[in-house]
Amino acid sequence: MDQTGEMVNKKRISESTIHRLSLYFRALSQLERENNETVSSKELAKREKLTPAQVRKDLSFFGSFGTRGLGYPVVELKNKIAAILGIDRSWKVALVGVGNIGSALVGYKEFTKQGFQIVKLFDNDQRKIGSNHKGIEVSDIDNIKEELTESDIELVILAVPAAVAQFVIDDVVRAGVKAILNFAPINLKVPDDIYLRNENMSMELEYLSFAMVNNHTPRKVR
Amino acid sequence: MDQTGEMVNKKRISESTIHRLSLYFRALSQLERENNETVSSKELAKREKLTPAQVRKDLSFFGSFGTRGLGYPVVELKNKIAAILGIDRSWKVALVGVGNIGSALVGYKEFTKQGFQIVKLFDNDQRKIGSNHKGIEVSDIDNIKEELTESDIELVILAVPAAVAQFVIDDVVRAGVKAILNFAPINLKVPDDIYLRNENMSMELEYLSFAMVNNHTPRKVR
Repeated sequence: MDQTGEMVNKKRISESTIHRLSLYFRALSQLERENNETVSSKELAKREKLTPAQVRKDLSFFGSFGTRGLGYPVVELKNKIAAILGIDRSWKVALVGVGNIGSALVGYKEFTKQGFQIVKLFDNDQRKIGSNHKGIEVSDIDNIKEELTESDIELVILAVPAAVAQFVIDDVVRAGVKAILNFAPINLKVPDDIYLRNENMSMELEYLSFAMVNNHTPRKVR
Repeated sequence: MDQTGEMVNKKRISESTIHRLSLYFRALSQLERENNETVSSKELAKREKLTPAQVRKDLSFFGSFGTRGLGYPVVELKNKIAAILGIDRSWKVALVGVGNIGSALVGYKEFTKQGFQIVKLFDNDQRKIGSNHKGIEVSDIDNIKEELTESDIELVILAVPAAVAQFVIDDVVRAGVKAILNFAPINLKVPDDIYLRNENMSMELEYLSFAMVNNHTPRKVR
């Protein structure tokens, strides 16, 4: 990793900051499409409902960008954030579980747009195994450890039922995959060197019900 | 709202804390199923890969629960958190856009489990309008403002293409709905009194690519 990356690592950048970088990346992509050459921290903050001070603080982690009065150069900042997020390259992804959610994710354009290419599917349903699902071959989940070991896949998305998720993730970890996004509503155990993120879509609904019940100050963050 | 809720409001509880409450709720539900009567902050922390100090701090917002040496009473704490999150009741939800993602969300069991009942669907596809989708009637999106106004639906999930999302959300807001979960990959504008959350599933993949590129210290938070 280059100097920037090392700096990020040293600073122990927080989860919230990483998520805000994703937001900035999207806002900057939009600004680029709108042919803006520069953007102020105030404008970026407005688009993401953050404070300009927060934006300046986040971006200051990554060296000095902004020019007083001129703002940040849109394309340069966008590319720098992409490099920091690791989305200036493409990632080969396997998706396990071609059910309701899994099937929807195969066609999810935001993944492709950000460089995440689903190149392999796994399922335990004999009717699905061997077939093509939206152009991608469905492999037998029984062979997942061998197939992942032999592949150059670095990211795995788990969209299997909670009851089998731990067995599946154990095989994924044994195959040497280090980064896993889990959609199963269960706490999975992985070794300390594995990056595991859980996507739970009802959490955002709970945030909304919390806000309504408590008259929370509206604030959109992600 | 009761005293607890007011206290929460006053404290301006952070987004991360609310998400951790969702995690605690799940862990406590699991502990209840495992017939545990009490749980220590250490055990709760271990299950969610947090520090015991963080757990104690979060839970201290909501009054005094823990007994030194005995820990927290599982069911009581679970119910208290449910009340704070507003999931001790059920919520009627409309889902707009019965496409790839929308269709998967209709069958998403975590919503129902947490009390979020999808009772109405909207789409602009004539082949879908008037039909039943997994037992729920699909209405014409052209009538969304009127139908929502007449209904007791308090939460709306948007799963429409980015290009039309602003038009749709404008109608949803005009119908008096105050809380919206948006899956469209676009920044939507809403009045200040609306609770809007964006669900972007590629953000979690970006977190993983960030972690891998920067050798970030593995840490599972949600």
